[in-house]
Amino acid sequence: MPLTEDQLAEIEAARANPQPTLRAVAPGMEQHLYTAVPVLDHGFVRVIDYMGDDAAIVQAARVSYGAGTKKARDDSGLIRYLMRHWHSTPFEMCEIKLHVKLPVFVARQWIRHRTANVNEYSARYSILDREFYIPEPDALAAQSTVNNQGRGELLQGAEAARVLEILKSDAGRAYDHYEEMLSQEGQQGLARELARMNLPANIYTQWYWKVDLHNLFHFLRLRADEHAQYEIRVYAQAIAEMVKDWVPAAYGAFEDYRVGGVALSAKGVEVLKRRLAGEAVTQENSGMSKGEWREFEEVFG
Amino acid sequence: MPLTEDQLAEIEAARANPQPTLRAVAPGMEQHLYTAVPVLDHGFVRVIDYMGDDAAIVQAARVSYGAGTKKARDDSGLIRYLMRHWHSTPFEMCEIKLHVKLPVFVARQWIRHRTANVNEYSARYSILDREFYIPEPDALAAQSTVNNQGRGELLQGAEAARVLEILKSDAGRAYDHYEEMLSQEGQQGLARELARMNLPANIYTQWYWKVDLHNLFHFLRLRADEHAQYEIRVYAQAIAEMVKDWVPAAYGAFEDYRVGGVALSAKGVEVLKRRLAGEAVTQENSGMSKGEWREFEEVFG
Amino acid sequence: MPLTEDQLAEIEAARANPQPTLRAVAPGMEQHLYTAVPVLDHGFVRVIDYMGDDAAIVQAARVSYGAGTKKARDDSGLIRYLMRHWHSTPFEMCEIKLHVKLPVFVARQWIRHRTANVNEYSARYSILDREFYIPEPDALAAQSTVNNQGRGELLQGAEAARVLEILKSDAGRAYDHYEEMLSQEGQQGLARELARMNLPANIYTQWYWKVDLHNLFHFLRLRADEHAQYEIRVYAQAIAEMVKDWVPAAYGAFEDYRVGGVALSAKGVEVLKRRLAGEAVTQENSGMSKGEWREFEEVFG
Amino acid sequence: MPLTEDQLAEIEAARANPQPTLRAVAPGMEQHLYTAVPVLDHGFVRVIDYMGDDAAIVQAARVSYGAGTKKARDDSGLIRYLMRHWHSTPFEMCEIKLHVKLPVFVARQWIRHRTANVNEYSARYSILDREFYIPEPDALAAQSTVNNQGRGELLQGAEAARVLEILKSDAGRAYDHYEEMLSQEGQQGLARELARMNLPANIYTQWYWKVDLHNLFHFLRLRADEHAQYEIRVYAQAIAEMVKDWVPAAYGAFEDYRVGGVALSAKGVEVLKRRLAGEAVTQENSGMSKGEWREFEEVFG
Repeated sequence: MPLTEDQLAEIEAARANPQPTLRAVAPGMEQHLYTAVPVLDHGFVRVIDYMGDDAAIVQAARVSYGAGTKKARDDSGLIRYLMRHWHSTPFEMCEIKLHVKLPVFVARQWIRHRTANVNEYSARYSILDREFYIPEPDALAAQSTVNNQGRGELLQGAEAARVLEILKSDAGRAYDHYEEMLSQEGQQGLARELARMNLPANIYTQWYWKVDLHNLFHFLRLRADEHAQYEIRVYAQAIAEMVKDWVPAAYGAFEDYRVGGVALSAKGVEVLKRRLAGEAVTQENSGMSKGEWREFEEVFG
Repeated sequence: MPLTEDQLAEIEAARANPQPTLRAVAPGMEQHLYTAVPVLDHGFVRVIDYMGDDAAIVQAARVSYGAGTKKARDDSGLIRYLMRHWHSTPFEMCEIKLHVKLPVFVARQWIRHRTANVNEYSARYSILDREFYIPEPDALAAQSTVNNQGRGELLQGAEAARVLEILKSDAGRAYDHYEEMLSQEGQQGLARELARMNLPANIYTQWYWKVDLHNLFHFLRLRADEHAQYEIRVYAQAIAEMVKDWVPAAYGAFEDYRVGGVALSAKGVEVLKRRLAGEAVTQENSGMSKGEWREFEEVFG
Repeated sequence: MPLTEDQLAEIEAARANPQPTLRAVAPGMEQHLYTAVPVLDHGFVRVIDYMGDDAAIVQAARVSYGAGTKKARDDSGLIRYLMRHWHSTPFEMCEIKLHVKLPVFVARQWIRHRTANVNEYSARYSILDREFYIPEPDALAAQSTVNNQGRGELLQGAEAARVLEILKSDAGRAYDHYEEMLSQEGQQGLARELARMNLPANIYTQWYWKVDLHNLFHFLRLRADEHAQYEIRVYAQAIAEMVKDWVPAAYGAFEDYRVGGVALSAKGVEVLKRRLAGEAVTQENSGMSKGEWREFEEVFG
Repeated sequence: MPLTEDQLAEIEAARANPQPTLRAVAPGMEQHLYTAVPVLDHGFVRVIDYMGDDAAIVQAARVSYGAGTKKARDDSGLIRYLMRHWHSTPFEMCEIKLHVKLPVFVARQWIRHRTANVNEYSARYSILDREFYIPEPDALAAQSTVNNQGRGELLQGAEAARVLEILKSDAGRAYDHYEEMLSQEGQQGLARELARMNLPANIYTQWYWKVDLHNLFHFLRLRADEHAQYEIRVYAQAIAEMVKDWVPAAYGAFEDYRVGGVALSAKGVEVLKRRLAGEAVTQENSGMSKGEWREFEEVFG
């Protein structure tokens, strides 16, 4: 269970105490505030704060004085226009702050998104908890045989059992030794900043992560995608569900233009035009490489 | 007057409608929300939104689950520690969004601070208003004779009058011609994106500007400083007053460590040690250049 | 003429003195170094320095030890793969530094690209030259009647003449007054930081601008596009020509996937599939707005 | 040994082939290019490329056309002025690209510096080598008893031996199991992106890291400092030695104003003035907290 009784009590207390504000309020997001959405076996995502809503995007795009008298439908049309034409700055006017608990190897992938603010729990200063990510059987996949950085079939039987056994026992032993090295009973006790080096990449860490909506959409496009590693994808999907409630119009545009959309190359446009004109185009006369053609066919058959 | 009746009415309406939120609320900032603080002759700054407060800085630094049971005094001590030791990331966890109306030559200086989000009123798309910055007599200064990028004495008498006359009449004529070129009465009318090139740098523009507290402090340190150009300094000072009400502990630390503080060089440290030991150090035997020595003496005599 | 005799002599001298280096050298770029490509009536772009080449992109992507033994054709295929799959970090491993002379209103648009390094000529410190952008007749366009931020037909006859007359005489007068206010003959002389406010947005400024290849491609995609304002587009096009000689493989991929490519929405994909299946889709049953449908038809008929 | 025979041969080949360039060349840096400076037991730092030199900083600050006729001594004075007055943009005009091999727990600290470009070796795609950081006896320190994130005395005798034994055997076992899980002999073989989670934080990774000189100085100030963890400090120090040869004037200014300098608070300035005036100031009447006073006394006694 990701949270202790005390932590849950603190969250309850924070949620029990609404205060008046004059700022833009997104009712769909208020319902999520502070509550922890469980992800993986010990992780979670929870919203600590947010700034802005759909109307704030429109207001910034218009550099206007107030919420204005435009209808929500006009706002939605403008938001779709902005998304379609890559006008990214109005989306930067919304901001979200998350508290995330996640395995270190997921954190290492996540942090590659540099346009964000981060405060991570320090293992130089504090002692990490004994919590490790151990995959569920349905996440225990073999190396893909067609994709160097993907997964293939699920591991079966004895092999699956053996892998789980290794992950659990190695993590447990590493943590026992971590504590043993840190211990100051009858010995000096190794510095925390050194002892941590014995911990494996599936140990959980946590951080506060703050990002604007434009950069969050970029993160979600890459990390909620089916090609992303499962263990980061589930975090991205949990966040996407919150964003949908926070800025429904912007999220709708994002789904249509980014998630469900396709970036066609000049060659791809040409092939489609030829096919629309009745020509039977093949990879050989398409000008595309085999890899490109395969990706093209996955979409258009 | 910076705002029209309609705009003031919209602001009134926005301020009349508090809504409940579970987020961190900074009462000192709520009182400023939406109201326009006049700056220069036609400009203003107003807060559109904010995220976080002093407690949010502490909470992020501790990556904690809730507001915790620590007292405000402990929080303040931690905030001072973070500021003193250049731990900047917790301050990035607060964010502010401002609506600013400002002369173009001020905007050009302001935008050099790149770590911020901006939506500016577009003169490709819209027509700018007839509003120009004309300095007050007490801001009409001569070129400094000692500093290539500073101001010296105030202009006097006929020279001051002549300068004001030039600024007013050139701005007025430029705007008349702008309108004349845009006009579609009896002619085609020049494209807005071209006509704008006739407008001088003292015309007012406006933008939404969003920045985190760490980068805002950096902006304030450089732009609220006495060496900054007066016309941007007054904006920085207006913002500083709001920040003081928003995050009083962080602002206090900022004042002590950044605004009132001094960055000593290794040579400066050495000179101080020698003087504390009773030695009478001169520029010649200080190891400092003349410029450096002058700046040093301005602080320590 | 953008450069003086002295400046040309300095450039000649710099180009006359090759030195040995062990770094990656791009012969196609060496030929451009320091020479000024004229843009608009008084502007230019010139390359001051560059880092990396096509092979450097590949080397970084592979985090490899040396140039390796792979053939250029493999490199080109990997570069296309990286571009197609939005792997942007290897492209960030190339960097370019430009010296640009450009009108202020172009500089204001340009600076919106924040992920770059800039040093601009300071009008607080120095006195600007008497050089203004005056459009050629074939750039003197009316406001578009269909696009709020675009241009329509060329201005004709007396209207065109009148516009040119205004732009020239207002700029000239503004500059005369600028000099007059600065003058210290028989008067104190207004501070430079104030006098500059009288100058119109078509005066030329100049800066050093340094950017990585990924962010440069983003700039080129937006600013070399036909929807960009003509006066910034010509700069982008001049830069694009240099980039083509610098990193031909990366530029080729950029042209195919970004410049000539199309971002289809989920709805656009659906419409294409229906049309490929023989259905005659109309805007009404496409799910697209009118604006979206018009943009779609511009590509696919 | 950090490099294989093949890698050393590749480096030799790269160093054997100087080519002519018209760009700024820093002779002090050419001597370092490609050679690997060993750091820790298996790590290294090597320069892959650089852009600019001391003169390039000056040229950008002046937005000048050529190298000019100023003497090196003037350049050095201007560089010191820029550093003293926090004019950071000219330093951003120099860029460096490094290839670094480093333990994962060091990489995690390093990556917190976000204004840089990074390509890391991918453990989703590739298999990591069996190389782990095992501290030398003189780096095996106990937890500090006065500083929550620091080190104290060296571990002694049996405790030190036991720690080394744990680190070695746990790393070895973890790697054996990593290979065992990956193996496709007689089994499917776990996906690389999953198997990596069993590896401890002292395994070595490598990346290409590219950063401008301003942000590199910021990195060096924090990470070459005595309060930084030893394992990252040795990397920072190795880089500092290269930078000293690359841009000697800028590095000299950095040492004087940043490394050897001290940031005094307003209270610190006040205390110094009182002491210079002959007063015996104590912590109690200084206005400083105990921690602040202790840090102040460390400098001024």
